[in-house]
Amino acid sequence: MRAVQVTEFGGPEVLRNVELPDPEPGEGQVLIEVDHIGVNYADTHQAENTYLAPSKLPLVPGGEVIGRTPDGQRVLTLLGGSGGYAERAVGNSRMLIPVPDGIDDLTALSFVVQGATAWLLLRKSAHLEEGESVVVHAAAGGVGTIAVQLAKAWGAGRVIATASSEEKRSLALELGADVAIDSRAEDMTAALREANGGNRVDIVLDMTGGRVTDQSIAALAPFGRLAFYGMASREEPKAVELRNVLGHSTTIAGMWLAHAFSLPGNVYGKAMTELFELALAGRIRAIAGGEYGLSQAREAHEALRSRATVGKLMLDPRR
Amino acid sequence: MRAVQVTEFGGPEVLRNVELPDPEPGEGQVLIEVDHIGVNYADTHQAENTYLAPSKLPLVPGGEVIGRTPDGQRVLTLLGGSGGYAERAVGNSRMLIPVPDGIDDLTALSFVVQGATAWLLLRKSAHLEEGESVVVHAAAGGVGTIAVQLAKAWGAGRVIATASSEEKRSLALELGADVAIDSRAEDMTAALREANGGNRVDIVLDMTGGRVTDQSIAALAPFGRLAFYGMASREEPKAVELRNVLGHSTTIAGMWLAHAFSLPGNVYGKAMTELFELALAGRIRAIAGGEYGLSQAREAHEALRSRATVGKLMLDPRR
Repeated sequence: MRAVQVTEFGGPEVLRNVELPDPEPGEGQVLIEVDHIGVNYADTHQAENTYLAPSKLPLVPGGEVIGRTPDGQRVLTLLGGSGGYAERAVGNSRMLIPVPDGIDDLTALSFVVQGATAWLLLRKSAHLEEGESVVVHAAAGGVGTIAVQLAKAWGAGRVIATASSEEKRSLALELGADVAIDSRAEDMTAALREANGGNRVDIVLDMTGGRVTDQSIAALAPFGRLAFYGMASREEPKAVELRNVLGHSTTIAGMWLAHAFSLPGNVYGKAMTELFELALAGRIRAIAGGEYGLSQAREAHEALRSRATVGKLMLDPRR
Repeated sequence: MRAVQVTEFGGPEVLRNVELPDPEPGEGQVLIEVDHIGVNYADTHQAENTYLAPSKLPLVPGGEVIGRTPDGQRVLTLLGGSGGYAERAVGNSRMLIPVPDGIDDLTALSFVVQGATAWLLLRKSAHLEEGESVVVHAAAGGVGTIAVQLAKAWGAGRVIATASSEEKRSLALELGADVAIDSRAEDMTAALREANGGNRVDIVLDMTGGRVTDQSIAALAPFGRLAFYGMASREEPKAVELRNVLGHSTTIAGMWLAHAFSLPGNVYGKAMTELFELALAGRIRAIAGGEYGLSQAREAHEALRSRATVGKLMLDPRR
């Protein structure tokens, strides 16, 4: 089968188009004929071995696919981090998510990581309450586009989007953000307060890192929460002094989706069910970020890393 | 009237018994004939000027009293940080909390800061869910004794108390803790995991600081929360790296009660109402930590600072 393989760590240039034998499902696994593959920031970190979990070589990147099982069921699944950039993948039978009719491949792949992340950030990390102000950094990205819509659907007060281009900010406004500001603002603290009518903000969803994180924390109102779920800038924010979180009643909530699967009460399953329902009801929608052939995986990574993309990127294993 | 005054910052020795003119209520204020005064850790920080908010001299310490208004109403109130250690105090008319029949002075004073703190930590900072494990440091203290009972009343799974003496640990167990361990454990991470059947813990309520805080964070399960509300040890914990909160899906939630009064939806008022209801229903109770005469305020501070006390300390302005 056709696949993409990484045999040395690095940027997009390490993604190589190769022929590999079909993977063999073991006990409790199933072979999936892949229809579409989701592309994630995590994949780019994996290729350069800067992800939270260390990568092993050789590696077929790709953690999320939608496709068909041998008995013809249409399923969405997470692959435990790798094996997705291929015509066929092996999934864990217990991790298969049946996809309702009316949910297309793009929507399903937009929800399996990014949608679930947005759901968890607002519900479990930040505990959004009605009327609260919510800042969504990278609002035109995979998580951001869903988070803006979810926040509005759940009764947030002012939703403040940040994005790096006019086009991205327009998209955020279209999706329901009340205001969209330039993510390159020199003083993000001041920019966020200004965007919130002079007031500090209740919630910030942040996957940027570095200075943006530092300045976002400084913009939080008492009892405000920063939900922190990535470092796309590849820059560490300043370490947080507990004296300061105490003095400002600040919450810093880290969130790595990998941990959500073992939460009691099937929280992840509930998130997916609710996301599908909201999409079928027309209250949230997935944003297409570009479809690439499997042989163009490098271009997809380059696009994602350039931060010029909006919404969800997919690969088509048939080309 | 008789009062306690601080004219230079320091330890308990700076509390001086003096005669002062009765305070004069201004616009929107009311004179309260004080029945009992609550003693807090914050008072000790205030006297040495190590509190979150800086103190001004000369100072009559004491932020919480129960007493009677000129029209005979029995009221509980917070004084905005000072003026309580006296026979009469001036309260803000909008901050007066009517106390239901059946709630005695000790109970009312136990709830106005410590009970409300326990309520806010579990509800707003840690968002306790049913079945979750909860560590309560300083479980025999003012906040701890209420927190242990509230956690159980709200369906927590295993409640793990820490305290520095056999007597305090017995009290915590009496109040419903499932297990009580020595707060001086050298390796608090290991001690907490062991007390939780080998598992990491979901929630830690911490007002200790220093090493205990560092080691408690390390004991948190994914999606675990440290609710941090003080530094009784007067030692700073290590600054928290955001890379670590991300990699472990950890939440650090600072909480300073002063911020709770301006939360929308009268959250503080709801907390007090629910606490009174739970007390009247016999589901939580206040623990007497010792009653001192106003002239013995030094002894009360010494007792609190020695960390030998349990429950709530009060001063009686009539002696």
